[in-house]
Amino acid sequence: MQPIKQKFQIEYTYSVFFTRNLFEISNTSLKDFFLDYQELGFQRKALIVIDQGFSAFYPQLEKQIKLYFKQAVPHIQLAPEIIYVPGGEASKNDPVLFDKLAEAVDIYGIDRHSFVIGIGGGAVLDLVGYAAAVSHRGIKLIRIPTTVLSQNDSGVGVKNGINFHGKKNFLGTFAPPVAVFNDLTLLNSLDDRDWRAGIAEAIKVALIKDARFFEWIEQNVVSLANRDETNMAYLIHRCAEMHTDHIAGGDPFEFGSSRPLDFGHWAAHKLEFLTNFEVRHGEAVAIGIALDCIYARRIGMLAENDLNRILDVLTALGFDLYHPKLSENDKINLRNGIQEFREHLGGRLTIMLLEEIGKGVEVHELDADLISLSVDDLENVQLHSAGAKVSQ
Amino acid sequence: MQPIKQKFQIEYTYSVFFTRNLFEISNTSLKDFFLDYQELGFQRKALIVIDQGFSAFYPQLEKQIKLYFKQAVPHIQLAPEIIYVPGGEASKNDPVLFDKLAEAVDIYGIDRHSFVIGIGGGAVLDLVGYAAAVSHRGIKLIRIPTTVLSQNDSGVGVKNGINFHGKKNFLGTFAPPVAVFNDLTLLNSLDDRDWRAGIAEAIKVALIKDARFFEWIEQNVVSLANRDETNMAYLIHRCAEMHTDHIAGGDPFEFGSSRPLDFGHWAAHKLEFLTNFEVRHGEAVAIGIALDCIYARRIGMLAENDLNRILDVLTALGFDLYHPKLSENDKINLRNGIQEFREHLGGRLTIMLLEEIGKGVEVHELDADLISLSVDDLENVQLHSAGAKVSQ
Repeated sequence: MQPIKQKFQIEYTYSVFFTRNLFEISNTSLKDFFLDYQELGFQRKALIVIDQGFSAFYPQLEKQIKLYFKQAVPHIQLAPEIIYVPGGEASKNDPVLFDKLAEAVDIYGIDRHSFVIGIGGGAVLDLVGYAAAVSHRGIKLIRIPTTVLSQNDSGVGVKNGINFHGKKNFLGTFAPPVAVFNDLTLLNSLDDRDWRAGIAEAIKVALIKDARFFEWIEQNVVSLANRDETNMAYLIHRCAEMHTDHIAGGDPFEFGSSRPLDFGHWAAHKLEFLTNFEVRHGEAVAIGIALDCIYARRIGMLAENDLNRILDVLTALGFDLYHPKLSENDKINLRNGIQEFREHLGGRLTIMLLEEIGKGVEVHELDADLISLSVDDLENVQLHSAGAKVSQ
Repeated sequence: MQPIKQKFQIEYTYSVFFTRNLFEISNTSLKDFFLDYQELGFQRKALIVIDQGFSAFYPQLEKQIKLYFKQAVPHIQLAPEIIYVPGGEASKNDPVLFDKLAEAVDIYGIDRHSFVIGIGGGAVLDLVGYAAAVSHRGIKLIRIPTTVLSQNDSGVGVKNGINFHGKKNFLGTFAPPVAVFNDLTLLNSLDDRDWRAGIAEAIKVALIKDARFFEWIEQNVVSLANRDETNMAYLIHRCAEMHTDHIAGGDPFEFGSSRPLDFGHWAAHKLEFLTNFEVRHGEAVAIGIALDCIYARRIGMLAENDLNRILDVLTALGFDLYHPKLSENDKINLRNGIQEFREHLGGRLTIMLLEEIGKGVEVHELDADLISLSVDDLENVQLHSAGAKVSQ
């Protein structure tokens, strides 16, 4: 008998909105969005999940949200309970939190035509997105990212995930949200480390795709370090735009092996793990970028002037470019990271390196000894930079 | 700032192959399929998961599979352990089994370019499909269904799922397989109940979409009941074809509310639950179809002649059309099923009823009292049919 050949396409669309003071009654962003979901004889609901780390800065948040929905979006029924989960990587490590969200979806009758709204940093949004994606085979997800990193990178993308038996993002899906609301005023909750950390992903995407954007960052590096909101708004918008363009133009659900947006990430993932996540993701990415750029310089791929510009920008933003864990030679060490990244991709190693600012190129092997030498270089850069600061 | 509008499409293709004796060395179906996955310097792997209920009939299966891969597909590395899970609904109720599969994916280094191969009935394939879909955000899934029901219906579709806190399919995703292999000889493992039960889904799809296919079933009802393999092969192929066509032509990931393939299913789901799954899914669907057709007759939608033809075919195949649990008036009863189905769909009830053989029509309410009367009718049909058998 003839085989049956099945073929179909699924179209995904969503918008990333940029706003301030999202839950003030005068702000119509959410109200306007929900106008498209207004049917008669059909009760849509919404379950809200908030990052505790974030909510501590906004004691009035729950009250404000409830008032907003009551007045501006009366046709969507809020679940009576707002769910809180711990912020940061902890939210992805504890399987009880996943169960808690799935139970809330069940208890409050959140169906496939209702919404789960996640408010928080990237880790919390990863957890909330995963729970929404697999409950009832997919509830509509709205992301309200509260960090630079989630507003310009993970929060506007299509992935979610939690950790399983200590393996990062072992469980997850590709599941686009129905909308993302980037509220600039929420960034006031960030300390300087998290403000800075998010800039690393913008530098990453500029380096591999857009030399002019990198130049803009160079020119505005002082004001960015000093928390200038207008420049940060531009940086987030441009980075989010490049991120979403990359997804749409390439392989959104990563059926192939190429992952250019993982530039600087193989070492970053390993360093986060080696430091038990004391080094935050963006901080680790900054180090990962610096390391891979030094490596590219060592193999003659990247010009010295380009390398220096990159290291200068990272240093001017206040990033540390070295961590002692990079040099440790324990059983679990940085070099393992290459092999792990290879396994993560599925057999063939594909690493993005830099040819020049604005232009990445994929390679399929890294020399472990050259990496160790590049780590030594990083330590020297850091010493020199600290020295320079002292001498000023 | 302007919103970013994201839009992209994901294309899915897969084939459903029809064969016999899949793991005999002379059979090249699997070998041919894996030719497309032959790269240099890139080790793809496969993890095999087998339904214990099925494997009991094939003591040589594991040996045969290992030999087949060694000789016919040497470039795919089998995980050293083949995983066994209990058959039937039990496989979806126990969260430990999901963990076991995810752990095996981890331990044996099954990555996104490798394969998980599920061999078993619909419930086991639902579990295996879910574990594959969320591990590493989606490992390639091959389904080898071993029942009529999974070969002509669930196994060729795009859904997976497990139960959560007693809620059927509460956790799951839409995740198309990369291939399905329907091996007719595997059906020898089925008892008469399961052979028959799978025919219910073919009757369902014929009734709502294809009067000629229903006529063919009518004409061949005796040989189908007597386990004629050639007719069963045709029935499975045609049913699978209509199922896959429906998915591709409609709303594959069910973003809307309409679910025509759920014809006869609202009562079926409830009856399975009320009988603690002693009534098998296909048996329950046969009753659900009969019930909704009697209901359609009672509201003047379906002609008496059509109703009688449908009841005759179901009876001739040997289906019981009544179960005492349908009439019980406990707190949890059949009537609850309507409300639960409404919640499952998300607020608006949409039920497919029959206008004539080959033509379904959607309605948005059911009268609970008329359903009770229809259950009484079912009991009478069953008594009459049993009487007729006795008097012959």
